[in-house]
Amino acid sequence: MHIHEFQKMMRRMYFQRDRRRGIAGTYEWLTDEVRELGEALNSNQKEELEGEFADVIAWLASLANIAGIDLEKATLRKYDDKCPKCGHMPCKCTF
Amino acid sequence: MHIHEFQKMMRRMYFQRDRRRGIAGTYEWLTDEVRELGEALNSNQKEELEGEFADVIAWLASLANIAGIDLEKATLRKYDDKCPKCGHMPCKCTF
Repeated sequence: MHIHEFQKMMRRMYFQRDRRRGIAGTYEWLTDEVRELGEALNSNQKEELEGEFADVIAWLASLANIAGIDLEKATLRKYDDKCPKCGHMPCKCTF
Repeated sequence: MHIHEFQKMMRRMYFQRDRRRGIAGTYEWLTDEVRELGEALNSNQKEELEGEFADVIAWLASLANIAGIDLEKATLRKYDDKCPKCGHMPCKCTF
């Protein structure tokens, strides 16, 4: 599924609630999900880990929806088959 | 671009460095990018905000690569056109 399609699906599913909650509250949910992903990385339960990765991208898409950002366009503008820092594929950054 | 294709692009671009850095260090980068996204949400600079959204999904894909997770499969397993909590589209959760 395209990143853009996924964002649209999240909009159909959650936009009304996301909008009511607002940007600050939705960002807070995202940070909670990132914390849970960190905990799941320390477990050895693949299914749980997959669910936490899913939650982070889902909340990122929700946040993009209410912030008026097209996640796929924004992403491919910066990461368009070369590293945005060094301009190479693969990345040749030395830091 | 499909989520899966984006993850593969990130693998081609960064996998060697991501693997050397490891899961803990890459997770730390992800949390830094989420923090920067939070700061950008408080600014009114759309281009900067787009870049921060791009960075978060990019680092999430990098982390998925070294954790051995297919981000698209994991995401669509949980968010398959209905809310994973209430089973409805749109979501009808009452909390």
